Amino acid sequence: MYLRSIEWVDGAIKIIDQTKLPEKLEYKYLTELDDVVEAIKNMRVRGAPLIGITAVLGLALVAYQNKGKSDDELLEILRYAYKRLKSSRPTAVNLVNMMNLLMEYARKNPDPDDIILYATRLMDQDIETNRKLSEYGSNLIEDGDIVLTHCNTGSLATVSIGTALGVILRAFEKGKNFKVVITETRPKLQGARITAFELLYAGIKPILIVDSAVSYAIKSIGITKIFVGADRILRDGTTFNKIGTYQIAITANYHNIPFYVVAPTSTLDLINDVEGVVIENRDGDEILKCGGRYIAPHNLEVYNPAFDVTPPNLIDGIITEKGIFYPPYNFTELE
Amino acid sequence: MYLRSIEWVDGAIKIIDQTKLPEKLEYKYLTELDDVVEAIKNMRVRGAPLIGITAVLGLALVAYQNKGKSDDELLEILRYAYKRLKSSRPTAVNLVNMMNLLMEYARKNPDPDDIILYATRLMDQDIETNRKLSEYGSNLIEDGDIVLTHCNTGSLATVSIGTALGVILRAFEKGKNFKVVITETRPKLQGARITAFELLYAGIKPILIVDSAVSYAIKSIGITKIFVGADRILRDGTTFNKIGTYQIAITANYHNIPFYVVAPTSTLDLINDVEGVVIENRDGDEILKCGGRYIAPHNLEVYNPAFDVTPPNLIDGIITEKGIFYPPYNFTELE
Repeated sequence: MYLRSIEWVDGAIKIIDQTKLPEKLEYKYLTELDDVVEAIKNMRVRGAPLIGITAVLGLALVAYQNKGKSDDELLEILRYAYKRLKSSRPTAVNLVNMMNLLMEYARKNPDPDDIILYATRLMDQDIETNRKLSEYGSNLIEDGDIVLTHCNTGSLATVSIGTALGVILRAFEKGKNFKVVITETRPKLQGARITAFELLYAGIKPILIVDSAVSYAIKSIGITKIFVGADRILRDGTTFNKIGTYQIAITANYHNIPFYVVAPTSTLDLINDVEGVVIENRDGDEILKCGGRYIAPHNLEVYNPAFDVTPPNLIDGIITEKGIFYPPYNFTELE
Repeated sequence: MYLRSIEWVDGAIKIIDQTKLPEKLEYKYLTELDDVVEAIKNMRVRGAPLIGITAVLGLALVAYQNKGKSDDELLEILRYAYKRLKSSRPTAVNLVNMMNLLMEYARKNPDPDDIILYATRLMDQDIETNRKLSEYGSNLIEDGDIVLTHCNTGSLATVSIGTALGVILRAFEKGKNFKVVITETRPKLQGARITAFELLYAGIKPILIVDSAVSYAIKSIGITKIFVGADRILRDGTTFNKIGTYQIAITANYHNIPFYVVAPTSTLDLINDVEGVVIENRDGDEILKCGGRYIAPHNLEVYNPAFDVTPPNLIDGIITEKGIFYPPYNFTELE
């Protein structure tokens, strides 16, 4: 029922090329650092947790290819790879958090085989973490609910199972009787393409709406609960997530329906405040083009932030593998 | 500077085929009732005021083709045409309001030449009406504003000049110094395709965003005012407009920035209440496909309402050719 989005296969990283979905379930082997950077940048892999794991396996790949080098040489090469991987997507904090764990380990054990083992263990941990948070979250879904999710946070955003979508999949697995509404999630249509694919794969037929229909759908078809993922969560609960999340949180608040964020604690950023986080502005062609063709005049100015910022007062609960946190949020105890 | 979207040319209706924009500015002649119904249904013409005028010219076309018939026969044929045109789009009230004016006239003067003259006069009135409301609305825009509009309400939604976009174009004509942000307006992308085209045509370079970026753009780039059109306005100010309008009104309210509706008084429906209005649900393929290709799995359930409902408490002003109305709205005095 759950797809497996990434694996380590003897010196290569096997991924699902998500840019090909939903037409083709196509696997791709990444064998060079350049491939890994390209795959993250061009969103062949996407979703904060999966980006983190991909980067960590990227470091393992570099270690694998530099067996026999001295400890100092290896660490130097890893530091270079770390910098390149870090710059591939600036907003998701898991990328850095996960790589930091591996770099700390490598400093103590600069042995390629050990580094690879550690990286694959982090990958397995992601599965376990998401299993736990999906379990916690699934308890919030009741028979008769109409649940909305935005973007993709399922097996294809993580290693497997997922976060916000994991909650939905787990509740379905438990036999709960509810409906799922998904936003198409412009500009890259992760909802229409990937979330739809994953839900159908699991046997759930979702209802697709355009992003701007959320408020009206709450009124007209009665959406009762909202679950979204996160690319970064600050100390006070401030959440960075796919563009549109903030707007959905505002309308959930206006209509008095609960709005939950679902993410592993590796998404926490206990250091930065809002001003310290870079919001990635992506290429205008992502909006101007669809299916390779221009759907708007070419010479428009485009503002294409990939993420937005949802303040903690609009969030009713943050669901992690360590349980559900309720406002006022304070994650410093997890340090 | 203003495009002319529709004309009567000796027994034919000349329109711009808006489904071809922005690639091609292609004109099309409608010479049969079937052509007119098809053009409205498939959105070759769109925008509430333009739909109304197209339907009225459709009736004139029927009268033109039935010269020589007895008064009773002509009225019978017109009533049949009225019914077919009425069913082409169910939400926009102008369609019915405008056709009612013509039918009333035709009952008194069942003369084809007079009917054609009356229809073209209604078309000219649309220009004059929009000139007036654009003038009123343009006074609300100040130097330094960043103005957002949704969908298309310009020359291509009316006969010329436009409503919400007319306000923006008129303010620009007056030399005011402000920026314009437009939503792409899924699923049919009237913002990205048509509003962008019209603004560039007028010499304004707009900033394009996805529909779900409105809330974040208010915070990050500081949108200061919002102007939208309307397909129907009820007695109390309740506004039916393109899907997404309600969501934008909620976020404007949350951020405390003014949200204005701009429409001619022919958009008023003083008879129905909210329950009495049918919201058009359009084909799911409008969302599942882009540029003729599927962008999502085919077998999804799709909820594709074309319009939504904005309650009067979220509207700061309704701009008409008879001046700007402020809450509490009460349009019965216009009866």
